[in-house]
Amino acid sequence: MTQALARLSAETLQTFAGRCFGQVGLRPNDAALVADTLVAAELRGVTSHGLIRLPVYLCNLRDGVVDATAHPTLAADGPAVALVDGRRAMGQVAAKFAMDLAIARARDNGIAAVAVRNSNHFGAGAYWAMLALPEQMIGVAMTNGAVAMAPTGGVTPLLGNNPLAVASPAGDEHPIVLDMAQTMVARGWIKLAAMRGQSIPDGWAQDDRGQPTNDPSAALDGSLLPIGGYKGYGLSVVVELLAAAISGAAMGPALENMGFTAGAHEQRTYPVHGVGGQGTGHFFAAIDIRRFMPLDVYTSRVDALIQTMKASEMGQGAESIFLPGEKEFIAERQRRTEGAPISTEIQAELQAASELTGVPVPVA
Amino acid sequence: MTQALARLSAETLQTFAGRCFGQVGLRPNDAALVADTLVAAELRGVTSHGLIRLPVYLCNLRDGVVDATAHPTLAADGPAVALVDGRRAMGQVAAKFAMDLAIARARDNGIAAVAVRNSNHFGAGAYWAMLALPEQMIGVAMTNGAVAMAPTGGVTPLLGNNPLAVASPAGDEHPIVLDMAQTMVARGWIKLAAMRGQSIPDGWAQDDRGQPTNDPSAALDGSLLPIGGYKGYGLSVVVELLAAAISGAAMGPALENMGFTAGAHEQRTYPVHGVGGQGTGHFFAAIDIRRFMPLDVYTSRVDALIQTMKASEMGQGAESIFLPGEKEFIAERQRRTEGAPISTEIQAELQAASELTGVPVPVA
Repeated sequence: MTQALARLSAETLQTFAGRCFGQVGLRPNDAALVADTLVAAELRGVTSHGLIRLPVYLCNLRDGVVDATAHPTLAADGPAVALVDGRRAMGQVAAKFAMDLAIARARDNGIAAVAVRNSNHFGAGAYWAMLALPEQMIGVAMTNGAVAMAPTGGVTPLLGNNPLAVASPAGDEHPIVLDMAQTMVARGWIKLAAMRGQSIPDGWAQDDRGQPTNDPSAALDGSLLPIGGYKGYGLSVVVELLAAAISGAAMGPALENMGFTAGAHEQRTYPVHGVGGQGTGHFFAAIDIRRFMPLDVYTSRVDALIQTMKASEMGQGAESIFLPGEKEFIAERQRRTEGAPISTEIQAELQAASELTGVPVPVA
Repeated sequence: MTQALARLSAETLQTFAGRCFGQVGLRPNDAALVADTLVAAELRGVTSHGLIRLPVYLCNLRDGVVDATAHPTLAADGPAVALVDGRRAMGQVAAKFAMDLAIARARDNGIAAVAVRNSNHFGAGAYWAMLALPEQMIGVAMTNGAVAMAPTGGVTPLLGNNPLAVASPAGDEHPIVLDMAQTMVARGWIKLAAMRGQSIPDGWAQDDRGQPTNDPSAALDGSLLPIGGYKGYGLSVVVELLAAAISGAAMGPALENMGFTAGAHEQRTYPVHGVGGQGTGHFFAAIDIRRFMPLDVYTSRVDALIQTMKASEMGQGAESIFLPGEKEFIAERQRRTEGAPISTEIQAELQAASELTGVPVPVA
């Protein structure tokens, strides 16, 4: 067991993060939204997309790289589709606007898709796909991201890990929520191994000559490997098409890195609609289940599928069979009661956010 | 170099397969369609979904397990969605009906999705996604399939390899066509290794206790491993939801195996709409690019992405960087000119088809 950590309640974290965002100019509703996405990730145990993102978001807003007061606008509009110009707003602000629109259009048409350009990092994809759940719809969210993987056969990182999230209601069971990047692991795990002087497993990364490597330093000079080799590369290309090519967002290496320094704009090589910011593209879709079958028939079918899998025989060493997103629901239930554990790493980021904004760090 | 094989032209193969299907009762249009899907796969080098499928398809039709004269019908209908009852028709007949509908609805609405229940094996998914290409749309096709993988932590195969296909137009470059199953490899590769007494690589399969194995015999008693571990498992669950849960198709282990014996119906454990046949479910979608941006802007953006990747530095030992589907376009171009190579394995299946139908085997 690891040492017990200090814990902070969801409400405390929400208030702190919301106040921080207000200090750098986000409108109250937007500040509450972005804070909620970070707290939700923290509660769900997705710490990589939780409060450790707070200082970099605040810096981007303070420096005007992300426009704190921008309103996303409609750039194209059809019965069941729309194109949103994020206007360099926070990715979360653009994502909420777009996913709400996808849900409304799906209500009218059975399915709808909304692409977004000129946006920024939108946090964890699951948050947006899950907006469909209270509407009894299936939600889909994708985004492109800073380059991480090389095309199969190549050595130059030209595609992001381009996550895909899908959420579906169930009945008595937890909803199914898949949220996955197309690389085997995030770069952070390789950095951690390098810091600790450990080797990395087969399949995680290749070096700068395209050879598989177990050396984290060589991996950091090389690129992350996609899941299933050319299959994960193909999935990443597809997300790039839907999130970026069709939206007019920055594609591939033209996308600014999330953690970039203000003003350090890289040269853009693609025709980009809109200017400045990270240039991220997203793709959202919603599917209204009731257009296909009664909702209770669908949810009982999903429950049956879940129960068949969870009741099936386990392999040696396995303690449980989980559905996608189930561990996160379990973590959230626990943390809503007990509070979220605050590691020293998170504590340092809360402190940094406090120094940037003057908002006092909450104490456990 | 392997020994030069006999070759047969696309036209010769199309005529032979079409006549065979006519002999077991498919209407001329349907016979030509199913023949075309097999020949297209053969030309594209996807021999696993080519003419070797002919005898099993013919048996299923002859025995009435698949209904040769069924017409798929609309079971539910909304502006941008539809639900199709395959009526136990050939999967290809249901897929053509459904994808044509998705394209027509996408023309009206910008995006459309059509789910199918009560269908059968539909061949290679790429064929259906690619129907969107002449319409200048992005096409999506998914299907569930006979169980092949266990949920992560489990040992019982409860999900198919559940392929996903996506096709997008490009400009001067080949369209991008991803067609991928969610397992690392198809079961056929493991059977081949077993026959040859070879071991299988890490990551392909687990034994019946859920332990990784390099022994093909142990793998055949166990299950195939998904790409990226729990990620590929999650993708397979998502395809099961879209293709089967929402369509009313047979789910997971309730799905009959493609090569099943007539009458050997396994017990169904889910509420299935419709009766008999394989019970397969599909999901198709089409996205009309012109609702988002002018077509030439999109295709030039896709070309730029392709060219950036193809022109990037290659790793040691790589001979080219390919986009998803590119190898298949190259194979098709060559085989349309030179004919498709007929291996002894394919020759045997052509012979079997001839014996089933009385249609003489074509000679090179």
